Amino acid sequence: MSNIAADTSAYGALCERFRRIGLLADTLGILNWDQATVMPEGSAEGRGEQIAALSLMRHELLVDPAVADRLAAARDEVGDFADPWHDANLREMERAYRDAAAVPGELVEAAARAEAACEMAWRGARADNDFAALLPSLQTVLDLTREIAAARADALGLTPYDALLEEYEAGTRTADLDPLFETLARDLPGMVDAALERQARAQDAVLPDGPFPIPAQRALAQELMHALGFDFERGRLDISHHPFCGGASGDVRITTRYSEENFTESLMGVLHETGHALYEAGLPENWRYQPVGNALGMAIHESQSLLVEMQVSRSRAFLAFALPRMKAAFGGDGPAWDVENLYRLYTRVERGFIRVDADELTYPLHIVLRYRLEQAMLSGDLALADLPGAWNEGMRELLAIVPPDDRLGCLQDVHWPSGAFGYFPTYTLGAMAAAQIFAAMRAALPDLEADIAAGRLAPMVAWLRAHVHGQGARLSAPDLLAEITGEPLNPRIFLDHLKSRYLGEG
Amino acid sequence: MSNIAADTSAYGALCERFRRIGLLADTLGILNWDQATVMPEGSAEGRGEQIAALSLMRHELLVDPAVADRLAAARDEVGDFADPWHDANLREMERAYRDAAAVPGELVEAAARAEAACEMAWRGARADNDFAALLPSLQTVLDLTREIAAARADALGLTPYDALLEEYEAGTRTADLDPLFETLARDLPGMVDAALERQARAQDAVLPDGPFPIPAQRALAQELMHALGFDFERGRLDISHHPFCGGASGDVRITTRYSEENFTESLMGVLHETGHALYEAGLPENWRYQPVGNALGMAIHESQSLLVEMQVSRSRAFLAFALPRMKAAFGGDGPAWDVENLYRLYTRVERGFIRVDADELTYPLHIVLRYRLEQAMLSGDLALADLPGAWNEGMRELLAIVPPDDRLGCLQDVHWPSGAFGYFPTYTLGAMAAAQIFAAMRAALPDLEADIAAGRLAPMVAWLRAHVHGQGARLSAPDLLAEITGEPLNPRIFLDHLKSRYLGEG
Repeated sequence: MSNIAADTSAYGALCERFRRIGLLADTLGILNWDQATVMPEGSAEGRGEQIAALSLMRHELLVDPAVADRLAAARDEVGDFADPWHDANLREMERAYRDAAAVPGELVEAAARAEAACEMAWRGARADNDFAALLPSLQTVLDLTREIAAARADALGLTPYDALLEEYEAGTRTADLDPLFETLARDLPGMVDAALERQARAQDAVLPDGPFPIPAQRALAQELMHALGFDFERGRLDISHHPFCGGASGDVRITTRYSEENFTESLMGVLHETGHALYEAGLPENWRYQPVGNALGMAIHESQSLLVEMQVSRSRAFLAFALPRMKAAFGGDGPAWDVENLYRLYTRVERGFIRVDADELTYPLHIVLRYRLEQAMLSGDLALADLPGAWNEGMRELLAIVPPDDRLGCLQDVHWPSGAFGYFPTYTLGAMAAAQIFAAMRAALPDLEADIAAGRLAPMVAWLRAHVHGQGARLSAPDLLAEITGEPLNPRIFLDHLKSRYLGEG
Repeated sequence: MSNIAADTSAYGALCERFRRIGLLADTLGILNWDQATVMPEGSAEGRGEQIAALSLMRHELLVDPAVADRLAAARDEVGDFADPWHDANLREMERAYRDAAAVPGELVEAAARAEAACEMAWRGARADNDFAALLPSLQTVLDLTREIAAARADALGLTPYDALLEEYEAGTRTADLDPLFETLARDLPGMVDAALERQARAQDAVLPDGPFPIPAQRALAQELMHALGFDFERGRLDISHHPFCGGASGDVRITTRYSEENFTESLMGVLHETGHALYEAGLPENWRYQPVGNALGMAIHESQSLLVEMQVSRSRAFLAFALPRMKAAFGGDGPAWDVENLYRLYTRVERGFIRVDADELTYPLHIVLRYRLEQAMLSGDLALADLPGAWNEGMRELLAIVPPDDRLGCLQDVHWPSGAFGYFPTYTLGAMAAAQIFAAMRAALPDLEADIAAGRLAPMVAWLRAHVHGQGARLSAPDLLAEITGEPLNPRIFLDHLKSRYLGEG
């Protein structure tokens, strides 16, 4: 890298520029972490100004007309490089430029302002269960999102919704998603029925009795993070209202929130974020600050958190490893402190209104609902005023429950108020990819289950690092999945996992 | 401001550019705070890259050729503005540009690299008491500093040392400093003798017995910070190895370090940093992110920390206010917990080798030594190899003690290894300005002493905000001092304060 970056080629100049863009992104990561964890409340306005200025500088670096010229020149040069990573790096540069240049700066700015205002309105509207109060600012956000989608569609030669999807998950198209989500919409409701019936016949899960002091919860979380290979010399665990994985390259910071009454949710949240963190920490160091050194799209990122959370941490094997550590942390004793009970607890199915509280089996149905609705809103088939009704109707169809109010319905998520149309599908793409990658890993590592039960997690993490994390953005997500698993995204693997876990099949 | 910034004038464009520069500076403030307080150790390299990239971007924004053209055009426009703050803002823009453009970018970069290497070498050399190990890298830093000084001297029409001084303290010249420091060098040694004799005749100060739990120390520090008007909604108190005041506009963060054996030093350190913090927090909000909204040079900044620490917090009046709070914090009881004893403790004089541990009376002599030596090194009159000898000779002359080794001598400070020649004088300029400003404030607020003793600190802080903090960089430091106190910097006021406190005179 350094010999390329220092040279005078167009590609070398682009590497220097993208290195700066990467360092701005890292800095924004630290500013965001700080805001969520330690920033004094009264400093929010100044922080907003800092973030806006750095974001604008990053954008300007990307859409500078010199970039287009150099990208064209670099296409001619890059054939000279023996290393295919350079080719992939240039491809990612081209994509980043195309994405950023597709939308006029004034539109980006107008949308950012409208989204900030709408997020504020959303907070109040959700608290007051008042969809009408959100409607005007959400309409503004939707109108601007449609303008952005149209601009991106023009520039990228895609349909408007696909043009939005492309930002979160390059190469993913509605034509690919529709059959996947229709399969889920068709199969899952019946599986939920069956799982609930099976659950009703089985023993009840018992929640361990608290209180669980927060320092003990933190120490337990750190112990399990450490077992998973999280490097506390290059990362942190802190508290924030909304858990996330952030920070910077080589400085990966995850957060959680604790309840003294129930340690199990926070702990699983930490393990989920640890999956994200291992991905970030395992990205190819030689390509740090270059586009090809970045994580792939949202779906693969989510696949890594869900692999650690759903495939690994909610398994009997992992719980067998974790249980003695939980007992030691809290002095736990009694029938709740049992692997089978913990397993029942961590795989309990429930029809609920709230996506973020949903279990693994019902969660995709929440996504199917949002996927359908956001397409309809974007196309204009669904007027915003009709959103609450359509939401409730969809919940009835997919989950057989109807929210008693919009707070538990269409007001629950911040995504649309913040302009993130096209983001929701990546959650379920991630869940499917997690199942598929885990199955491939299990085939490659015959001792995997025994290793997990014994807390020998290093082989698993090494495999993920070699096959996923360390690959950065060298391949597209579909190509990476095909390389690892030998086939494109296959919803049957996910459904088989669900059938095995929730219906006892296979 | 906003109407100017949004317009299409050259001055408006400059305001936009300097706003971005200010936001980059704020971001660097957060990155530096993070590094010193919470950053994982293994992330230092990445943090260095982030800081280097942002510093370079800030520098490029400043030395862009467009800036020179716009500054010239803005000089013609600015006569149209009724508000003299705009004129001062443009003057500060001109100064910032002149300072940044004076030194070629390659020289700045070479110096930054050499300083980073020399700081590393200094850490080892100090630990090993091995000046010879530092010599080669310090020579490189000195050589580059002389190049920088020559470039600045050329551009600014100053002598090389004055050209370095100008960076830390605009408008200050050796011709002004020499008589000040000669007065101190002449008067202080005898005063130290007299103070030590007087102290020997008086009762010994007794250090309160610990241990002092750190949470109690922190709570006490926060209580006194709060009394001084520190706003915890827009600031923080944390722990770092070297105490400092940092953060960003409207987000002022100070640090300290605690010893369980002795709370008094940490507490006074917190009050010192609170003085810096009140200055930062009180800068004119209407001019945030503009050069005229910045703090004045280092001397006025140090005057605000030393005013709070030396003039206020080490006074009998403040200690009378603080004592019951100290007793409550630690359950203190006995002869040590007495205002007179605390006052003796906090005004104890001692001939010591280490500047940062020095008391108010001997501290300026440490500065006189460094002021003389750094001028001699810069001019070439003192070869680096002869520095240890010259240091020890100077200590003998000024403080009548000779360090037993270089660790306690010329290896103690990081300033020269980090290229900060011309910085040391600002500490003592700050001490003199603090005494002079405090005297003016006492004259303006007849109840000051009684207010301080009663913990009514708001009138004092309001006065400082009106006369110092809220003035930003509207005036030069000498002009500000003259406006507040009616005369230029007068060392007699500082010496009178020392005579009163340490010799019982006046």
